[in-house]
Amino acid sequence: MPAKQAVTRTEVADLFRRIIRLSDDTIGQNRLVYTPNWVAAQQALIKFAVDQKLTVSVDDYGTVYVDLPGQTTASPAIATGSHMDTVVHGGKYDGLYGVLGGLSALLQLRDKYGQPRQTLRVISFSEEEGSRFPVTFSGSKHYAGIIDVTGITDNAGISIDSARATAVSQLQREPGVSRSLPDLPQSFTELHIEQGPRLSNQGKTIGLVKAIVGQRRFSVTIIGAANHAGTTPMNVRKDALQTAVQLISRLNQLATAPDPLLTFTVGHLEVSPNTSNVIPGQVIFSVDCRHAEDRILDTFEIQLRNAVNQATAPGITTAISRWVSDKPVPLAAPLLAANRVLATRLGYDPVVMVSGAGHDSEIMSRVTPTTMIFVPSVAGISHAPKELTAPADLTAGIALLTASLHQQAYS
Amino acid sequence: MPAKQAVTRTEVADLFRRIIRLSDDTIGQNRLVYTPNWVAAQQALIKFAVDQKLTVSVDDYGTVYVDLPGQTTASPAIATGSHMDTVVHGGKYDGLYGVLGGLSALLQLRDKYGQPRQTLRVISFSEEEGSRFPVTFSGSKHYAGIIDVTGITDNAGISIDSARATAVSQLQREPGVSRSLPDLPQSFTELHIEQGPRLSNQGKTIGLVKAIVGQRRFSVTIIGAANHAGTTPMNVRKDALQTAVQLISRLNQLATAPDPLLTFTVGHLEVSPNTSNVIPGQVIFSVDCRHAEDRILDTFEIQLRNAVNQATAPGITTAISRWVSDKPVPLAAPLLAANRVLATRLGYDPVVMVSGAGHDSEIMSRVTPTTMIFVPSVAGISHAPKELTAPADLTAGIALLTASLHQQAYS
Repeated sequence: MPAKQAVTRTEVADLFRRIIRLSDDTIGQNRLVYTPNWVAAQQALIKFAVDQKLTVSVDDYGTVYVDLPGQTTASPAIATGSHMDTVVHGGKYDGLYGVLGGLSALLQLRDKYGQPRQTLRVISFSEEEGSRFPVTFSGSKHYAGIIDVTGITDNAGISIDSARATAVSQLQREPGVSRSLPDLPQSFTELHIEQGPRLSNQGKTIGLVKAIVGQRRFSVTIIGAANHAGTTPMNVRKDALQTAVQLISRLNQLATAPDPLLTFTVGHLEVSPNTSNVIPGQVIFSVDCRHAEDRILDTFEIQLRNAVNQATAPGITTAISRWVSDKPVPLAAPLLAANRVLATRLGYDPVVMVSGAGHDSEIMSRVTPTTMIFVPSVAGISHAPKELTAPADLTAGIALLTASLHQQAYS
Repeated sequence: MPAKQAVTRTEVADLFRRIIRLSDDTIGQNRLVYTPNWVAAQQALIKFAVDQKLTVSVDDYGTVYVDLPGQTTASPAIATGSHMDTVVHGGKYDGLYGVLGGLSALLQLRDKYGQPRQTLRVISFSEEEGSRFPVTFSGSKHYAGIIDVTGITDNAGISIDSARATAVSQLQREPGVSRSLPDLPQSFTELHIEQGPRLSNQGKTIGLVKAIVGQRRFSVTIIGAANHAGTTPMNVRKDALQTAVQLISRLNQLATAPDPLLTFTVGHLEVSPNTSNVIPGQVIFSVDCRHAEDRILDTFEIQLRNAVNQATAPGITTAISRWVSDKPVPLAAPLLAANRVLATRLGYDPVVMVSGAGHDSEIMSRVTPTTMIFVPSVAGISHAPKELTAPADLTAGIALLTASLHQQAYS
């Protein structure tokens, strides 16, 4: 039935364009969790799935589950999906590609093979980005039974509880929707754009993720003494910024040593009082470092702490505190091995790689075997309106996902 | 009449304490121009001077002129003074010391010697700090006939014209006050705290200012590319902050070469987007450099521009623009020479020095021979609530000013 599959692909592409148009794309995609744009997007997905006679449920965090029920409903589902929310001024593909790519795969399989042995499930997680409330991955964390998120507010002072209640009730009232939290699946496969330049630079189409990097974040504080830029001789200054630039320069050197794949970023830096005619009295900066192996992060953390402690000078004090420490997350090796065979059979030369970004798979891997399929991001751009993946690459990722879901749910 | 002089000193000290108490000193002194605190302070000065039967006038910018008329009123006045306004959260002595020190000197001279040959004038300039409106030295600039300031607003959107009209009319309505802009004086002597640590570090009491530094300020922009801190490999990053820290470090080295007295300050630095998990795409920082000789500033500016231009790298562009260029201002050598003799006679070992900060004297020197007397700032602290000068040093500065005014107005 190739003609019917072509129709399916066109219909899903229409749904993609419909959801994209919900955001004014001159400023990128803005589907922050529980906002009207977000509600409209999940509603569009629900309506499409109900029209397609799929089984739709919505949990109390607003995650949408689209099931194609299997013959043996007693067995757990084979699941795929990603998140519906975006960062502020985000791109078109981060998250949404995994949701609609999953839907496209599910419909193509139904068109071609009919009812699966095990239930196929596409998940559209409510929130992953942490771009509205100070929490990340709350959709997958709720499904995985890891946390309850309550009592926090967004920048406008709106509580997550009231925003969620209003938004989720709109989804749960949609015709054909049941309110429920489905059982955990037998496996979870997340299709996602790479959000980095490795595949693109290597001219490769498919990445298979063996692990998600661990990350540690630190805050480094340097305290000197603010003083008059004109009257204070150079040799008696306690200039916090001058110490900071020496230290950051040193850290950048140190970061090259433990491993070439270690990433090191000073992304945030605040000078105080930050006036052109006053010597900086205080500087606070962030350090973000990531690697797939905890021991590499251990090594760098020791060097980092030593360098910060050694940066003290007469009248200058330094301090460092760690505020994020996420261990590397290995994903399921058997699923990756199976996808590698399938990808090769489809004519791709898959790259086994590490994800430098966090994903819902990080959470899902705690409760079920989980794997990820990456497709290239043009120039590695992500979290920005210019985020782009070539149509052929989008299709390739969906083809591999389809083959994998077929192997798992039909054989 | 030493007893009467002691009474005078006590009365001026009372006035000082009264003015200081107008600001809640837990957050420092806050007498921003044309605010209620500022009006109350100028009113206190006016009332005191009228009570002392001195001649008081107020110009249309709110500068207060307190005259002890001389026998030959046809001759120009011998003037002293400083400014009444403060920075936000300022200290007790910056500006106010020169106003009340001048008043103390004038009253001691009258007590001891009676009417002077030439008129003695104490000036309390309306504004010098630029801490409310985007203009500096507007008091002395108005007196010197250099500029009219109009049409600008403060952060609250209040126009300087309406703020000035309201505040100045309150002063000009005070009993005994005439509204006028007096003729320019024959000389101007400004008594001021050093606002730097040189005198304090050398254990000296009196500084005589031969020049006010020239200063240039620049804005340096570094543009790279913002990207994901986890997914972007180190070797393809265009990290604007890493370029900035290398450049600032290099500039700090370069600044030591032209002359030990050259000051170099990066006081303001803004990172964009300034988020811990995003590689900085842009950094803008300020450069403030000062020296008493223009050729030293010329030399450094060439090196600065070369270093900024050389800091470009693949994917990184840099730019520099100059937004302040004030030439060094030499003060009157004959007045300094005379003060040096008087200071030595009084038992001080005066230090001839350069002022690293701007002062009303910079403006007054354009229209009349001008000199400055500095007293030590404890630890060089200024523009802060902890600004302090020891009582003995305050007295020493006033003693030298008194001797100088005596020499000029009575002989």
